[in-house]
Amino acid sequence: MADQTFPLNAWYAAAWSHEITRALAARTICGKDIVLYRQQNGEAVALENACWHRLLPLSLGWLDGDNVVCGYHGIAFNSDGRCVHMPAQKTINPSACVKSYPLIERHRMIWIWPGDPALADPSKMHDFHWNDGTEFVGEGGTYYSLKCDYRLIVDNLMDLTHETYVHAGSIGNDAVTETPFDVTHSRRIATVTRWMNDIEPPPFWAKNLGKPGNVDRWQIIRFEAPSIVVGDVGVAPVGTGAPEGDRSQGVYGCFLAAITPETEKTCHYHWNFVRQFRKDDAELTRQINQAHVNAEGKGLYDQDAFVLEAQQRAIDNNPRLPFYNLNIDAGALWARRLIARMIEDESTGVTGLHSEAAE
Amino acid sequence: MADQTFPLNAWYAAAWSHEITRALAARTICGKDIVLYRQQNGEAVALENACWHRLLPLSLGWLDGDNVVCGYHGIAFNSDGRCVHMPAQKTINPSACVKSYPLIERHRMIWIWPGDPALADPSKMHDFHWNDGTEFVGEGGTYYSLKCDYRLIVDNLMDLTHETYVHAGSIGNDAVTETPFDVTHSRRIATVTRWMNDIEPPPFWAKNLGKPGNVDRWQIIRFEAPSIVVGDVGVAPVGTGAPEGDRSQGVYGCFLAAITPETEKTCHYHWNFVRQFRKDDAELTRQINQAHVNAEGKGLYDQDAFVLEAQQRAIDNNPRLPFYNLNIDAGALWARRLIARMIEDESTGVTGLHSEAAE
Amino acid sequence: MADQTFPLNAWYAAAWSHEITRALAARTICGKDIVLYRQQNGEAVALENACWHRLLPLSLGWLDGDNVVCGYHGIAFNSDGRCVHMPAQKTINPSACVKSYPLIERHRMIWIWPGDPALADPSKMHDFHWNDGTEFVGEGGTYYSLKCDYRLIVDNLMDLTHETYVHAGSIGNDAVTETPFDVTHSRRIATVTRWMNDIEPPPFWAKNLGKPGNVDRWQIIRFEAPSIVVGDVGVAPVGTGAPEGDRSQGVYGCFLAAITPETEKTCHYHWNFVRQFRKDDAELTRQINQAHVNAEGKGLYDQDAFVLEAQQRAIDNNPRLPFYNLNIDAGALWARRLIARMIEDESTGVTGLHSEAAE
Repeated sequence: MADQTFPLNAWYAAAWSHEITRALAARTICGKDIVLYRQQNGEAVALENACWHRLLPLSLGWLDGDNVVCGYHGIAFNSDGRCVHMPAQKTINPSACVKSYPLIERHRMIWIWPGDPALADPSKMHDFHWNDGTEFVGEGGTYYSLKCDYRLIVDNLMDLTHETYVHAGSIGNDAVTETPFDVTHSRRIATVTRWMNDIEPPPFWAKNLGKPGNVDRWQIIRFEAPSIVVGDVGVAPVGTGAPEGDRSQGVYGCFLAAITPETEKTCHYHWNFVRQFRKDDAELTRQINQAHVNAEGKGLYDQDAFVLEAQQRAIDNNPRLPFYNLNIDAGALWARRLIARMIEDESTGVTGLHSEAAE
Repeated sequence: MADQTFPLNAWYAAAWSHEITRALAARTICGKDIVLYRQQNGEAVALENACWHRLLPLSLGWLDGDNVVCGYHGIAFNSDGRCVHMPAQKTINPSACVKSYPLIERHRMIWIWPGDPALADPSKMHDFHWNDGTEFVGEGGTYYSLKCDYRLIVDNLMDLTHETYVHAGSIGNDAVTETPFDVTHSRRIATVTRWMNDIEPPPFWAKNLGKPGNVDRWQIIRFEAPSIVVGDVGVAPVGTGAPEGDRSQGVYGCFLAAITPETEKTCHYHWNFVRQFRKDDAELTRQINQAHVNAEGKGLYDQDAFVLEAQQRAIDNNPRLPFYNLNIDAGALWARRLIARMIEDESTGVTGLHSEAAE
Repeated sequence: MADQTFPLNAWYAAAWSHEITRALAARTICGKDIVLYRQQNGEAVALENACWHRLLPLSLGWLDGDNVVCGYHGIAFNSDGRCVHMPAQKTINPSACVKSYPLIERHRMIWIWPGDPALADPSKMHDFHWNDGTEFVGEGGTYYSLKCDYRLIVDNLMDLTHETYVHAGSIGNDAVTETPFDVTHSRRIATVTRWMNDIEPPPFWAKNLGKPGNVDRWQIIRFEAPSIVVGDVGVAPVGTGAPEGDRSQGVYGCFLAAITPETEKTCHYHWNFVRQFRKDDAELTRQINQAHVNAEGKGLYDQDAFVLEAQQRAIDNNPRLPFYNLNIDAGALWARRLIARMIEDESTGVTGLHSEAAE
């Protein structure tokens, strides 16, 4: 697959934990149609969403205990995908089964391994602990079937200079564009670090800091291949030691992105913004969520979604890839390289290297 | 055409008789755009629906006596498809014509032969006399442009175990799934016979029989290649001789299907349910029609249409044909074989064999 | 490009002058995505509508003086398409630019040369002076993204016998079909001339002439390759010398068409009807515009649009080109030949011949 855009042997966010219940949920992940549900003991299951017999989506059927029953002819499969009932016959063809996908439920999300189950390795799970609801607090959401290559979102988050233009008036200001940044990388992780010291804080941070005067502002964006981005962002009063590691006088949080390819040109964008300040303030949680998405399509992430889908259409209409790059793209370029290496390793059979400790 | 899914040299239902009038009606049948209308003497006509000159659909024009006039430049064609008027010229190019398709009007329907007109043979017309309105009574309808391969409907009707799952609560019960059946076939016809003796009748039949106690229930499904299915179904009180041929104490009817490919992946599903009991009860006729289709999309056939279109989408997304099969598919498999043989005969030039007496 | 349907090295109408302002306007012309705007001095600009960097349409950005700023990362381009600002870097890559298209603003329209800018030659501009608003008066409009090959509109206008059928009841009458016509041509221009002498005027002309009795009616249709049609049409009382050149007793006007390919199968149809009579009557101007397009889709040109899109769908479904032709198609055939020659010359590198004086 010359133009494969994603590796299959990796963990991808399939859903928020609260979305998967005793109801059958259909989702396409990395081009594969999948049905998700919980067993009676609460454990989540992901099966191929096409009956072995006549391909009807199993998600149109129903649960019988822990088995899913096809709504067309009543063929039943257990949570391993093995057929346990065939209508009008006592002998069950032992080869009758649907694929079962490895799952891990962690950090308030359900993660799926769409590739070879034999290679599914829990040690390769991403670090996403910021989403736990313990150290940080926040409630996010998902853009399902966003009409763009998932890598366009990675590009978007790895270069926050776009804040100045796409998000002018809320979190963007000229300092983001004017301040230089560093990029480091390992085999799985690329990190962009930008410190904007002694600047006027943008409105969001000024309000939440609640102290007058200039700040040191940071943006430390961590990409974990192929599809996780965690942005450690915050401000502290100038001279209180934040650049040296003492954030005690500051306010900060993380934007979290678990981006999952749906097809080559569409994706699911699980996002959250979690914070370390005013953690008990449920109204603030609600307000921050609203600032990201809202009914009028004017939330921060709505602005990004609009740009990302327009960019994908432009790419389809103007096939002159690869992109030209600027200095600001250094982080995104490393992210793309790490993804490309995973795809290449997968196609050449290299395995087991991705869990190497990073950073 | 390696993946042709239908033969062209066969009779297919084009429309109900009452649908074709002095108004021009457009329909696509077996991939061919066709315009249908009646001549002044009432005889139906089917012409290629693209003007010889500039391809505008003739259905956008109008009738002038028995001729159809193109709405763009006024070119007129008679009911044989021969051009009889060209604007601004007295000489008519003798090669100027559109295709005319052989038609037969019979059993309250208009049947078309989309293949080679020279091979159109009335003796190859299907038996569909159950739709006459004489021996049996009932009013059906059509699902136009149903988004599935017409053969998925054949599969659906040749295996009624799906009633237990798709139509639970009306005509489905476990007996249909549990009872064995026989399959016989000739060159044109495959028949599935299932006798469920001494069972409790399902709600529909219990009500219409109006007698207490168990019944002998039968389902005798007759497929005539490539696209006709007639299901002889009914019940009689146990021990009154129905299995031996005496149905005088029972109630019964037929579901009728004349399925016409529109394209490789869409079809027109002409359906009816006709009965031999309470034939004068127009309200019952209306109720039975409503039970099959209704505005809320919850009729029996609406349930099937939902499943069939979902199945087609799944086939498109999961190209792992051929299907795996169960014992219950024996009837459908024979139907598929008879269709495949017709397509193969057509491609290799074998003709004239399909009218062989069958059963 | 074997089946290219339009030459690129030609002037095409991009927009009405009044449509291009200080707001960014996106348009696709000959398959190219283009953004149009006016500089502060009023001069119109056309740039490639995809940022050099990440392809986002520049039309989603904004103007900064005469520069267009990309809405994603703030990259700015001047009116020559040269990058003049890159975020976070002082050195600008000298190769960073987007294409700039030659424009001419003339006859109340903006004309673009989508091909090789080095070949753009003002002397090859079409004659469209009838649209000036001086000698003739009228207000037209545009069908954007009409779903048909632009050549179908050329066919439509070069053979007005279609008026008899498509526009029966307004401007069509049998005389158009019954009267012979002449066709002449040069390398760039094909002209169809039809004189219908001593006929009863159709309703539109009878009313505007305001004199009783028969008329001499003319239709002189001038096609300038690849996409301009000007139809000189009118009536004068019989015997007042119109056929000999004295139109002083008559009323007349021109229908104007500047047709621009959007893609191979869609186009923009800039149309107008201008007249030499009652030039100060703004209400008449409005009525004539309304007669061409109106909200109920029943204007003259709405009727054409309906037919043209239906024809394109029929062509797609019935791939049996080339068309068969009638005598009435002589003008359209010459138009098609002149277009085909331009395309062939372009592909073989012949240039500079198209400006040859014509007629």
